[in-house]
Amino acid sequence: MGKGRVEAFSDGVFTIAATLLVLAVPIPHPADGGLSNALLSLWPSYLAYAISFIVIGNLWVSHHELFHMLHGMDRPLMYANLILLMFIAFIPFPTAVLAGAIVQDTNLHVAAAMYAIVMTGMSVSLGTIWALASRRGLLLPGALSDQSVINRMRQWFGLTVWVVSIPLSFVNGYVCMALWIVVMVFYIVVGAGRVAVGESHRATS
Amino acid sequence: MGKGRVEAFSDGVFTIAATLLVLAVPIPHPADGGLSNALLSLWPSYLAYAISFIVIGNLWVSHHELFHMLHGMDRPLMYANLILLMFIAFIPFPTAVLAGAIVQDTNLHVAAAMYAIVMTGMSVSLGTIWALASRRGLLLPGALSDQSVINRMRQWFGLTVWVVSIPLSFVNGYVCMALWIVVMVFYIVVGAGRVAVGESHRATS
Amino acid sequence: MGKGRVEAFSDGVFTIAATLLVLAVPIPHPADGGLSNALLSLWPSYLAYAISFIVIGNLWVSHHELFHMLHGMDRPLMYANLILLMFIAFIPFPTAVLAGAIVQDTNLHVAAAMYAIVMTGMSVSLGTIWALASRRGLLLPGALSDQSVINRMRQWFGLTVWVVSIPLSFVNGYVCMALWIVVMVFYIVVGAGRVAVGESHRATS
Amino acid sequence: MGKGRVEAFSDGVFTIAATLLVLAVPIPHPADGGLSNALLSLWPSYLAYAISFIVIGNLWVSHHELFHMLHGMDRPLMYANLILLMFIAFIPFPTAVLAGAIVQDTNLHVAAAMYAIVMTGMSVSLGTIWALASRRGLLLPGALSDQSVINRMRQWFGLTVWVVSIPLSFVNGYVCMALWIVVMVFYIVVGAGRVAVGESHRATS
Repeated sequence: MGKGRVEAFSDGVFTIAATLLVLAVPIPHPADGGLSNALLSLWPSYLAYAISFIVIGNLWVSHHELFHMLHGMDRPLMYANLILLMFIAFIPFPTAVLAGAIVQDTNLHVAAAMYAIVMTGMSVSLGTIWALASRRGLLLPGALSDQSVINRMRQWFGLTVWVVSIPLSFVNGYVCMALWIVVMVFYIVVGAGRVAVGESHRATS
Repeated sequence: MGKGRVEAFSDGVFTIAATLLVLAVPIPHPADGGLSNALLSLWPSYLAYAISFIVIGNLWVSHHELFHMLHGMDRPLMYANLILLMFIAFIPFPTAVLAGAIVQDTNLHVAAAMYAIVMTGMSVSLGTIWALASRRGLLLPGALSDQSVINRMRQWFGLTVWVVSIPLSFVNGYVCMALWIVVMVFYIVVGAGRVAVGESHRATS
Repeated sequence: MGKGRVEAFSDGVFTIAATLLVLAVPIPHPADGGLSNALLSLWPSYLAYAISFIVIGNLWVSHHELFHMLHGMDRPLMYANLILLMFIAFIPFPTAVLAGAIVQDTNLHVAAAMYAIVMTGMSVSLGTIWALASRRGLLLPGALSDQSVINRMRQWFGLTVWVVSIPLSFVNGYVCMALWIVVMVFYIVVGAGRVAVGESHRATS
Repeated sequence: MGKGRVEAFSDGVFTIAATLLVLAVPIPHPADGGLSNALLSLWPSYLAYAISFIVIGNLWVSHHELFHMLHGMDRPLMYANLILLMFIAFIPFPTAVLAGAIVQDTNLHVAAAMYAIVMTGMSVSLGTIWALASRRGLLLPGALSDQSVINRMRQWFGLTVWVVSIPLSFVNGYVCMALWIVVMVFYIVVGAGRVAVGESHRATS
């Protein structure tokens, strides 16, 4: 059971889950000339689609960085990874629930909480893989480098955001979603900056 | 028709079937503030999703171990593998039927029996591949090692569980599902222990 | 635009189309204790699923044998392949139409004709790739060997079966489907025998 | 984060999005003998399916040619690619909306505009990747060759077609779709000719 095969299986689940998200966008069939209004009123579906697509994309990057740090794979790690994938492949469901709640303008706090709960479960699974790999001596020596420390900090940060979102969603679902978007933009900007630095390091070495 | 391509095709079917399971979870759209109840009452769908996801993950592992034992591939083996994949790709259907039966609190015995029948067909297909490979001389010499013996025992055990589940489901569907969960946990724990040993062997050699 | 990438893309379409077939099986939710009858009455869906799964599996084999004969790939060939994939990815639709017609016990002749028309289009696309590759000098020298001749004969045979099925479906849809099943079994048995010979050749050489 | 992995993830999204298009074709279940009429009246769904399938296929080719020009990958490029994939994976939705509008013979201008807007977003994302790669020095020296110039001209042409289609769709939706089909055929014919030349170059060198 090599690392490569588990990585290929994981990649498949990430890719398919991301592409299935579109099936959660309901196709409007208004009888009369109201298609433009119908399409505009579907904006929560588009937003939920975009959020989940970026979330899955970010997780795919984190997952690769994690696997890059491993020098082997064993069964406990493989099962921890399977649990993680179970959460990833489930993301289209809370995405659809979230979009439905905004469209109906009711229950948003419950839908946002459900989304955050699924993401918390996913974050815990991801952390479990790190912990298991560390305890079982499967991490490469380089796994204690600066890059890895940043990676793990980012994961703790992600977990914190999702855990905090559960109670926050009951205060205000829209604030909760705004937080997710801010964090996402932050990830992209920081990630972009960080790797730009990494690139120049590589270029000079 | 190399072993690698058949393995890649099989991996694809395993991955996609696992990721399609989420489409069987119905998306609730309650008009008033009943979303939390609606989401909680969907627990059978979540349970069926988790069971089938772990089942497919376990089968993927078994399938890889089997292909690891082969030194070649011919058409009879390829067609036996195609029949196996036909059962794997079908799993989302009995999963949805099972979840629906628990939600409606009726017909659970029929739904559990259907699930067990599909899984029995799958197990028989998996066994057929082993038998064909053995009879056609396509197994590696190492295929008689301890690891392989454990693998085959596990497959006989799996087949037995599914066959026994067919009549058992008519006695009590919930007991039947409890049995599946116990077996799954057993697989994970034993598998984890076994490979931990294998890892240390490899580390000392 | 290497042969390998086009082959990987094609493999993906074959795998996903085969796995999406299950979504065409409607999930029954009978209110009272009629689930076993509901599941039994869905046999046409199971049959259509199995036929299309085997058809796609066979086409995948043919496609690989064809690509095995190519020493390069150019744009015309790539577009011909794209048209072929367009038919492959469409197969879940006539499959669902066919199953629906049998369940409702009406219109079977139209549904079978539609299935045969899609398959004829697919067969013509496959033949076009062969013709293009031959005319553009992209076939390997070995492409004139016995194995290749058998492969091309099999493709002409396949095309003939689908073309003949279009008028035949208007005579009797059930006879038409029986023909498909007979041809499929024939393919599997002949294919199995042929490669068994090929294997022994390889073993002795 | 190597170029190869990002390319594999992208290939997965292209393949799955193309294969999911078929789920947007509604399965007709007429009670009486009207299946042939029902199937014929679905022609807009078949047309929309074919258009989107060819569009995705062409984009896949463009994407590969772009990645062929890169000698590395960094985070900004990876995120730009993720945005592109977000549009690609979304294509099944405007495809279904377009088909629905033609079937109902109303709102075609809105549906065509929506399709063109999504495609414009996709084209802009693709152009952003080129611009980013150029500014960050990630293009290979060969990226200024004739082939690359043709590739970029084709992308500007594509972007222009989609942008022009937005107002054009409000004039006449059918003219708009006719334009897309003409452009597609042009792409295929020019592409075929161009690579035939490229092939002969390679053959003579």
